[in-house]
Amino acid sequence: MIAPLLAHIQKYTSLTLDEQTIIEQNVKCITLAKKDYLFSEGDLCNAQYFVMEGCLRMFFIKNSGVEQIVQFGIDNWWISDYTSLTLNTPSLFYLQAVQLCKIAVLKKDKQDELFLQIPKMEHYFRSIYQRAYAAAQTRQVYFSDLSGREKYEHFANSFPDFVQRIPQYMLASYLGLTPEFISKIRAKK
Amino acid sequence: MIAPLLAHIQKYTSLTLDEQTIIEQNVKCITLAKKDYLFSEGDLCNAQYFVMEGCLRMFFIKNSGVEQIVQFGIDNWWISDYTSLTLNTPSLFYLQAVQLCKIAVLKKDKQDELFLQIPKMEHYFRSIYQRAYAAAQTRQVYFSDLSGREKYEHFANSFPDFVQRIPQYMLASYLGLTPEFISKIRAKK
Repeated sequence: MIAPLLAHIQKYTSLTLDEQTIIEQNVKCITLAKKDYLFSEGDLCNAQYFVMEGCLRMFFIKNSGVEQIVQFGIDNWWISDYTSLTLNTPSLFYLQAVQLCKIAVLKKDKQDELFLQIPKMEHYFRSIYQRAYAAAQTRQVYFSDLSGREKYEHFANSFPDFVQRIPQYMLASYLGLTPEFISKIRAKK
Repeated sequence: MIAPLLAHIQKYTSLTLDEQTIIEQNVKCITLAKKDYLFSEGDLCNAQYFVMEGCLRMFFIKNSGVEQIVQFGIDNWWISDYTSLTLNTPSLFYLQAVQLCKIAVLKKDKQDELFLQIPKMEHYFRSIYQRAYAAAQTRQVYFSDLSGREKYEHFANSFPDFVQRIPQYMLASYLGLTPEFISKIRAKK
């Protein structure tokens, strides 16, 4: 059931069969229909989500009422509201399925259990968070210093398959552009 | 020499005297004068920096030539360009002392050495990166949805001492405001 997750962990550390079984016992697999929510603003987020298939989007609602997407979760990515998860504060975000999804759910208490039973899982998550934080730092440059066209092209070149999979208005929300602007760029190609 | 760092680690995990000695052997202490650089755009960043005293700023230079501060490093914070560090790519950033600083430097190869000798250091850095990533996620809400006044007030309320310590034009650069705007808000108080 969680073969994609076990394969992902094994890119960072080797796992015995016993360890794989322990991980399977601590992770729950769920299927989400399009538009299902994992959590909403005001909820306590108490789990992390590993996307095995499909696509999630994390967004917040601006004071103006407009949805602002801050992150997508695609195949082999972990996604969560780490402030709510770490500090037990109500989430500022919504996490929703963009399409049919298969998700591995790791609850906070189960993660603590894993760290006790398989200490090298600390290495795995240390590596994952280090990369996620690195991406967040670098995104600050791309998002504040590229033109609309450059932002679109940087994103499309970095994630060519992904750009085909999500609705244009969601990509626009993430990049801070209008759907019409993206249509124009695409039409010119 | 690195007492503040050892105290910080011991908030997350206990250390024996032997382990403290190993950490001391793998960390280098340096003093920076105001305006000294730890790395510049184009450099390979191969270390992480723990601020024991003083303040660092990380910034990039926009296409327009303007400096954009993305992060400050103050007492008990780790700071680095994690993309350059993780992927061995040239940095997009500059890391510079705002004032006289005492810094604990942990090079990448020394960090790997520490993980081998003291595996629970994985737990420490996993916790640190998780919190840093959490803060980066939440910052996206505050930076894209608050008015200039609200951004200043949120920051000043979160870090009251810090706001007194750094030049106004640097705080302005970080918050995306003009120094004049900050002067006006302060004058009204």
